[in-house]
Amino acid sequence: MVDPRSARLAALAEGLTAAHVDGLLVTSAANVRYLTGFSGSSALLFVTQRDTLLITDFRYQTQAAEEVDGVARVVIESQSLWTGLWQNLAQLGQLEVAGFESAHLVHRDFQRLLEGGGRYQWRPTTDLIESLRERKDGGEVEKIRAAITVAECALERVMKSVRAGLTERGIAGLLEAALRDSGSDGFAFPTIVASGPNSALPHARPTARRVCDGDFRLMDFGAVVDGYCSDITRTFVVGRATDEQRELYEIVRLANERAAQALRPGMSGRDADAVARGYIEDRGFGEMFGHSLGHGIGLEVHEAPRLAKTADSPLVQGAVVTVEPGIYRPGWGGVRIEDDVHLSSGGAQVLTRFTRELIEVG
Amino acid sequence: MVDPRSARLAALAEGLTAAHVDGLLVTSAANVRYLTGFSGSSALLFVTQRDTLLITDFRYQTQAAEEVDGVARVVIESQSLWTGLWQNLAQLGQLEVAGFESAHLVHRDFQRLLEGGGRYQWRPTTDLIESLRERKDGGEVEKIRAAITVAECALERVMKSVRAGLTERGIAGLLEAALRDSGSDGFAFPTIVASGPNSALPHARPTARRVCDGDFRLMDFGAVVDGYCSDITRTFVVGRATDEQRELYEIVRLANERAAQALRPGMSGRDADAVARGYIEDRGFGEMFGHSLGHGIGLEVHEAPRLAKTADSPLVQGAVVTVEPGIYRPGWGGVRIEDDVHLSSGGAQVLTRFTRELIEVG
Repeated sequence: MVDPRSARLAALAEGLTAAHVDGLLVTSAANVRYLTGFSGSSALLFVTQRDTLLITDFRYQTQAAEEVDGVARVVIESQSLWTGLWQNLAQLGQLEVAGFESAHLVHRDFQRLLEGGGRYQWRPTTDLIESLRERKDGGEVEKIRAAITVAECALERVMKSVRAGLTERGIAGLLEAALRDSGSDGFAFPTIVASGPNSALPHARPTARRVCDGDFRLMDFGAVVDGYCSDITRTFVVGRATDEQRELYEIVRLANERAAQALRPGMSGRDADAVARGYIEDRGFGEMFGHSLGHGIGLEVHEAPRLAKTADSPLVQGAVVTVEPGIYRPGWGGVRIEDDVHLSSGGAQVLTRFTRELIEVG
Repeated sequence: MVDPRSARLAALAEGLTAAHVDGLLVTSAANVRYLTGFSGSSALLFVTQRDTLLITDFRYQTQAAEEVDGVARVVIESQSLWTGLWQNLAQLGQLEVAGFESAHLVHRDFQRLLEGGGRYQWRPTTDLIESLRERKDGGEVEKIRAAITVAECALERVMKSVRAGLTERGIAGLLEAALRDSGSDGFAFPTIVASGPNSALPHARPTARRVCDGDFRLMDFGAVVDGYCSDITRTFVVGRATDEQRELYEIVRLANERAAQALRPGMSGRDADAVARGYIEDRGFGEMFGHSLGHGIGLEVHEAPRLAKTADSPLVQGAVVTVEPGIYRPGWGGVRIEDDVHLSSGGAQVLTRFTRELIEVG
């Protein structure tokens, strides 16, 4: 079997030709990991048609050798990664036009290219690697599936152990410990546990607020397995749900269901968004759904494609995306239901299996 | 009492004058928070001598109003933060030369300045706000102290409950739940729990490895309170320590102690680093201490100043820094002992109180 990284480097080589560059400086950590397997936080990668060069520092000596495993030449640089880059580029031979990642290089480092790398012609590129990452291969989908299973397993465990009177922070802690215990390498993003009025804040952080009877309790969290993320939201009612809570919940549930069922490769991100948004608007809550329907997940928890009003491009086959409609009533509470969906050759496949029916807890 | 944010904005106004800019575009999230209190992940801040303008999106409407509380004018932008910026800058009046943060603006967004903001002259700046942040005020030191107390409290609890046979991941989960329970808003950085040979990897991630008798167990973690981070490392021995383990541990402990005692405002970061490094070199382990002695902590877990071989500048009074020497023997194990130290007017004050003596656990 071909190492998937070799296939990716070969695909990137075609991209370099199309972008008219002799090589590409890769500064996005996720892109470095995608191409080489290296998962450290400090690295410069330079890719040409013939060479793949990874420059990192002492702290990652052992790790880089193990993870990269021959796919790239590893250079351990004791002073500055940039010094290492200039020294090694000079030995690469034929290199005139060099690309860099416009979305992943800060202005200060761009200045370094013009100064330290002044002998090369630097050309900004965008999405050369991101567009490859959008189309997941089988191994990647399996890792995302594993991260979903871990997250669902953690949620099942916490459902059972959550008592009334716990704080949002306490619940987040239980969930995170369950994620670790279920096999997560870390957290895909800062865990959200939001109760009562806090659930109306789409990006709430867990607070010292104690969950009360009658609250919505929204949990948005993700696991990481082998670098790949899951991203799941479920909203529960603590105690008995009121009619108003049931109504709001049901609208979000149906918006989620309709969007997930409508998704297919080739559809634009805008049309996908419109399915959920149109339904919520028809029910009179359009003003209260102020964010986009979803985003791709993979090595990063937010990556291409976007499912949003402003997303024209067609969703590619192989993408894994979130579907996460929500309704937020400031001061009262909010509901969001988020699943992860694979756009496979056979159509959309919802990977998340945790029930979407309203659950009354505690 | 003056709102500390007003004092910071006034200090920045002097910095703008000195940098010969009429205003500054702030794109670092930590810098935005420092100046305005806003803690969301999506914002553009523009500061002039007379105006402070925060542009964010719908998701943060409620949060921005609460957190900013009059210190800045808040604009909620439904399409793109950049569109909002151009519209609002046009109304600001006298603005010719505008600064931006060279270390916090990716090349793609720099291009936006030249295109969408072409009527202004854009000038790169560095460290205008970071240099203010280096010198903590009393309130900031109190928040860091609180984050240290939370971390130490969590460590105490986990010490008692850790059983032999647990995995690194399981221990990380217990520690993180204890952090939440002790009042942490989140995690200052991904928790490190590294055992046996893994402790020789300075940036290890917790794995499924079960901790065994005779292992070093290194834990490097931090709490967050009101946005401020702590950063602590302790290394334990599981079971009885060997003479070799005791020797290595004692060298690191003394390197930590000597450096912490030697620290004072005005000393260069290089000289601080040299105290610990010189001691470890004299004991014959210089090759195995491959990272820097420490770094500032505050709203970010890595901020100015640096305590490193290449850090010439003097440490300012008011800084809070880590002191974290380590020795790493590949394949065998490693020890790191990390404290947080405040460079106060009275000299260096070690804020971390958890014992630095070798503890044999489980």
